[in-house]
Amino acid sequence: MSTLPQQRPAWSALQALGAAPVPHLRELLQDADRPARMTAQAAGITLDFSRQRITPAIFAQLLALAEQSDVAGQRDAMLRGDAINHTEGRAVLHVALRGAQRADAPWPASVSEQVQAQLKRMFVLADSLRGGHMRGFDGQAITDVVTLGIGGSDLGPRMAVQALAAQAAQSGSQVRLHFVSNPDAGALYDCLRPLKPARTLFIVSSKTFSTQETLLNATSAQRWLRDAGCAEADVTKHLIAITTLPERAQALGFAPERTLQFWDWVGGRYSLWSAIGLPVAIAIGPQGFEAMLAGAHDMDRHFETAPLAQNLPVLLALIGVWNRNFLGAPSQLITSYAARLVQFPNYVQQMDMESNGKHTHLDGTPVTVDTGPIIWGGLGIDGQHAYYQLLHQGRHRVAVDFIGVKHDDTPLPDAAEHLHMAQASLLAQARALSVGRGVAATHAALLASGLSEAEAQRLAQHRSFEGNVPSNLLWLDQLDAHSLGALLALYEHKVFCQAAIWGTQAFDQWGVELGKQVTNEVLPLLAGATASASLDAATRASIASLIKSS
Amino acid sequence: MSTLPQQRPAWSALQALGAAPVPHLRELLQDADRPARMTAQAAGITLDFSRQRITPAIFAQLLALAEQSDVAGQRDAMLRGDAINHTEGRAVLHVALRGAQRADAPWPASVSEQVQAQLKRMFVLADSLRGGHMRGFDGQAITDVVTLGIGGSDLGPRMAVQALAAQAAQSGSQVRLHFVSNPDAGALYDCLRPLKPARTLFIVSSKTFSTQETLLNATSAQRWLRDAGCAEADVTKHLIAITTLPERAQALGFAPERTLQFWDWVGGRYSLWSAIGLPVAIAIGPQGFEAMLAGAHDMDRHFETAPLAQNLPVLLALIGVWNRNFLGAPSQLITSYAARLVQFPNYVQQMDMESNGKHTHLDGTPVTVDTGPIIWGGLGIDGQHAYYQLLHQGRHRVAVDFIGVKHDDTPLPDAAEHLHMAQASLLAQARALSVGRGVAATHAALLASGLSEAEAQRLAQHRSFEGNVPSNLLWLDQLDAHSLGALLALYEHKVFCQAAIWGTQAFDQWGVELGKQVTNEVLPLLAGATASASLDAATRASIASLIKSS
Repeated sequence: MSTLPQQRPAWSALQALGAAPVPHLRELLQDADRPARMTAQAAGITLDFSRQRITPAIFAQLLALAEQSDVAGQRDAMLRGDAINHTEGRAVLHVALRGAQRADAPWPASVSEQVQAQLKRMFVLADSLRGGHMRGFDGQAITDVVTLGIGGSDLGPRMAVQALAAQAAQSGSQVRLHFVSNPDAGALYDCLRPLKPARTLFIVSSKTFSTQETLLNATSAQRWLRDAGCAEADVTKHLIAITTLPERAQALGFAPERTLQFWDWVGGRYSLWSAIGLPVAIAIGPQGFEAMLAGAHDMDRHFETAPLAQNLPVLLALIGVWNRNFLGAPSQLITSYAARLVQFPNYVQQMDMESNGKHTHLDGTPVTVDTGPIIWGGLGIDGQHAYYQLLHQGRHRVAVDFIGVKHDDTPLPDAAEHLHMAQASLLAQARALSVGRGVAATHAALLASGLSEAEAQRLAQHRSFEGNVPSNLLWLDQLDAHSLGALLALYEHKVFCQAAIWGTQAFDQWGVELGKQVTNEVLPLLAGATASASLDAATRASIASLIKSS
Repeated sequence: MSTLPQQRPAWSALQALGAAPVPHLRELLQDADRPARMTAQAAGITLDFSRQRITPAIFAQLLALAEQSDVAGQRDAMLRGDAINHTEGRAVLHVALRGAQRADAPWPASVSEQVQAQLKRMFVLADSLRGGHMRGFDGQAITDVVTLGIGGSDLGPRMAVQALAAQAAQSGSQVRLHFVSNPDAGALYDCLRPLKPARTLFIVSSKTFSTQETLLNATSAQRWLRDAGCAEADVTKHLIAITTLPERAQALGFAPERTLQFWDWVGGRYSLWSAIGLPVAIAIGPQGFEAMLAGAHDMDRHFETAPLAQNLPVLLALIGVWNRNFLGAPSQLITSYAARLVQFPNYVQQMDMESNGKHTHLDGTPVTVDTGPIIWGGLGIDGQHAYYQLLHQGRHRVAVDFIGVKHDDTPLPDAAEHLHMAQASLLAQARALSVGRGVAATHAALLASGLSEAEAQRLAQHRSFEGNVPSNLLWLDQLDAHSLGALLALYEHKVFCQAAIWGTQAFDQWGVELGKQVTNEVLPLLAGATASASLDAATRASIASLIKSS
């Protein structure tokens, strides 16, 4: 693994295969055996990659690239708890968060013990809130929980609580959950305005408990409690802290029994599985949370044991490398046909782009091949009525992951009709994007629809579709805690495998450092301090203009 | 304008300028006069484009490109109401929606009259709801309004209602607004579950009143009313229709007095200004809605009259063309530092990508230059804690629009501190992305921070920032209805100017056609019909698998 990716034989072979004409998907999809050959399943998820621009020869070289990149060896090192985060000198063990009950775990037993102890504490707090036993400063039960956190302390719980709305309703939770991540006054104000201070609890989530935006919001939240008559001694009744550094939370007045802990071997973007997941446990209950962990664990075991050619994370990773490095698609659209997964693309966006948006190999040399794609997306059916125009007829290469569900037991009378509409839409877009409709076929279709030859001629190019846009179809058996856990773990491991191929570090994030530093330089200037002469002209001018107009 | 973009002299000149080394932003931003030279204002918005990789020579050629593309002439044709949507044979007159009171309007007087008449009807309905005078089947006032619409009938009102939460609160609105766009059963169910049928009204928004997803949701919503005891004759009390084809709404049982109209010369993605904006008028009141129209109108007049070199929409367009066609940035990040604008990037995403995701010139020949970029984004501070890593250290060229606010009068005690945090974060990211920190400077900084020479050497590349990422800063004086209107109109006209340069049609959307057609082919197959032999193998296999598992 000391070689660069472009020095591996499979890389050169793939370059040659990518440079040669690959048959159009319209042709590839005439092969009736293709779908069965290009479908794999695990943990309640089916991956159909038959709409990728991949021939058997390409597939063979992609698997060879995985072998030559020692993806399996790097995976095993991660699963053992080796200190694979070299640039920060840490192990990476989020898999332990969902495998703590495993007798044959490859990581140290002390890790599992810590995890189980904190999980137990978290479930006690969740049950207490769910049962209405946690009370505010006027003695009444807490009804609203506001999570203050940002990035990894926000995106996961926010996404999962919405995704699992059906489970939350079934589990009988009466507590309403809210999330505020931005330090913008409007964000906090709009959230708090309809809430009753005496019945509101704040979860303050920060890995280091030094995240400025979160601490500012936490300070304003406490002021809001006090301004509503909460006595100083009662403020802690309205607070829970979640952090890897409990001593910092306690120094700020958070109660030890209300402080949940996780550890520096859990990356922020992998922390949903830790105490950071408390809002999810409040929403769906401890049993539901355990189902989510079990789903992720099932995917972990699949990743650990399945042959590469049927290994879902490895397949997703290889397909992504093919599209990014050899077909030149700089971005990856993630589009869900289950509306409750509306935040899922944002979650994957952080996980993927923060992990693989890198320009340095493990050995410190600059990367010269393309690394992680831009991840963007949202709900598919919204997209169809908006930006899909560009996918069909723009001048871009985009790779698409479609997420669908097979079953939906929403208690709406015509639920089946709704489900079919979603499924048909997904399949239609996957077909239209892959097969397209050439200019000649469009011309013929326009004539057949009754247009004159002149009109058909004039509009044929306008109304034609090049097709050949590659896509994966990911079907969940149903959207529940188990399948959500499996889906998230699938993308986590995909991201890991790609870093293993590119030879980059998936677990650091030095790229966020400079902005934080400059923020601290700029903050006092906005309050009137004098700028250092080294500050650039644009920043100086902006600050002067903001001060002048304030 | 019959020439292709690449045949214009300025295009070739820009190609040469883009191919030659452009100084790093680190150097360009040492020029103290640059910010004043590269800042322009209109309608309460300041555009600072000093962080673009643009020299005076490049700027001159960009303006020449605008001249040679006859942007001004094309603008005037649009403003006159010429039938510039050639492929659909229509005029494009959304500017008339916000200029109907103008005495010297260049469009026909009948247009202004129609607009004013519908606006009046819309305000009557909005006031009736706001005043609690509209009553449900049990005689009590309507408290909740659910808008059923998708794409252009959804994104604008959804975005604006959230953006203007402060105005809504000030205006004393008691009505809660909800939006359901997806046909997925979960989307509708999660929205309706906490609502009382007798106190809920549905706005069904569809330009053609034939949008399948919307009509399906409307049918299920009516069933929900009936199942809750609403008599057949009372159902229309709970319904408002908004459409260009009122006869279709009435054929489906909507009451004429509850049907608002707009016209085929209003594109779906430009329809927020029409009756489609009703949810906004309910939230902020007629006066607030008029302020939004006035803000857009101010920007329209600026666009119509300002010299190209100070014309905000023209500037944004030219900057975008430079980044897309000559610096090779395929995507444009739109990132807001005002949390209430969280949906703004989604709104611009539709407006821009549906308009400019095109591959055909007006004359029907294929486009061979790059057209509209991929638009993505969200809230800036969330991004800093997530995907900004890739902007700083990934292998991409991205152009960034930062949106900030100068003033914020949120009644939170420490509002100024919150505002400074948002502003400082914006300025810090703009600086870090443009100036960066090279490997040598990083090495020196690491040594200065106490790291050993070996450690500094090992980490210098990992912790370095290439910089040179171009960005616009767009400052709103404050986030209110007027400035929001101006901001939306600014982006609308930017998109128009880019299409004028590329020689493409910004107002059609044939790219959404094929997917709709295939959806209708697939729907009966999911219900068990036999597939035609011409269907591709992947779609056939997917359908079989869904049927088998259902």
